[in-house]
This record gives sequence, structure tokens and C-alpha cells, in this order.
Amino acid sequence: MSEDDQAVMVRNLLADLPLAGAEESFSPILERRGLRIERIVSHGHATPADRPYQQAEDEWVMVVAGAARLWLDGTGEVELGRGDHLLIPSGLRHRVT
Amino acid sequence: MSEDDQAVMVRNLLADLPLAGAEESFSPILERRGLRIERIVSHGHATPADRPYQQAEDEWVMVVAGAARLWLDGTGEVELGRGDHLLIPSGLRHRVT
Repeated sequence: MSEDDQAVMVRNLLADLPLAGAEESFSPILERRGLRIERIVSHGHATPADRPYQQAEDEWVMVVAGAARLWLDGTGEVELGRGDHLLIPSGLRHRVT
Repeated sequence: MSEDDQAVMVRNLLADLPLAGAEESFSPILERRGLRIERIVSHGHATPADRPYQQAEDEWVMVVAGAARLWLDGTGEVELGRGDHLLIPSGLRHRVT
């Protein structure tokens, strides 16, 4: 990189949050081969019990602000606070509760 | 995944922090092909000006707690607070200031 290249841009994850009451919101941050980083915002959202998430990709999740409760097949319900992180293996059914 | 598989493990990024005054600390969280997630803890640490970091990989950084100041070649100094994130392209010289 030389001095002529574009300046590196700083953005904030906690800025421009969607309004409370909206659906769970997913915003892409970065995509690379084999990787997608996205911001997920939930406001008391719960996944319908009969329609759990189930993905072809591993999903590493960390709570940056607030708190959440997740149900994971084979584990049960877990409470997550700020800084808590976990890896949801591909194919594992899970829900925001 | 079946109910017999191992339960998913929750860990906390802000737990077990190294003592203040220690060197900048890097802890691996997850490794996959083309991806490494690590926790970086700095306590007023500054990278020596004549030995900037310069990596073969792109590095996406987000401040989860506290604040930091980085110098980036071609951009200059940026102040980062909680939630701020940026992509440091591979090869770009940068320092914690």
C-alpha cells in the first residue's frame, strides 16, 4: 500500500441501529471466501419454535451489547451477556428465545 | 447433529484478562481455513514506531471494550471507541499508538 491509497474507514457497530420493534436485522460488514461477518440486531425478537435457524455454515456469535437467550439443539437454552461468544456448528438447529 | 453430540460451550471474551502492564496479548478463539479469530488485549501498549505490524492477511478489528489509538500507513492516526471496527488490508503498516 502507498500513501496514495484510499484511507482506511472506521465504522461503528452500535451506530444506526434499527428501531425497536422491528424484525431481527442482519447487516453485512465484510465478505470473503469462506467468511461472512454480519451485525445481528434483535429487540426482544424470538424465532418461532417450529422454524428454527439451521445453516450450512458454522456460525460464531458474540454479544457486543445487551443480552440474548438462545436455544440450541442438544444443549438447551443458554443466556448470553456482553462478551459471551459461542460457535454454532453447521446444521445445528437453534433459535433466539 | 444429534442430541448425543457435545453441548455447545459459551465463553466470555472479557473474562480472564491478562494483568495490566503486561505486553499486548493475543489469544486464539477460532481457526478455520482462511480465518483466525483472536482476542487482542492492550493496556496502554504502544508498538515501537520503527517496528510496525505488517501482515500477509487482511485483519478486521473491532473494539469490544475500552478504547485504542491506531496509526495506519496512508491514513494517519485514528481513535477507536467501543463498537468501532475497521479493515486493515494485508501489507498495510500499522501500529498501536
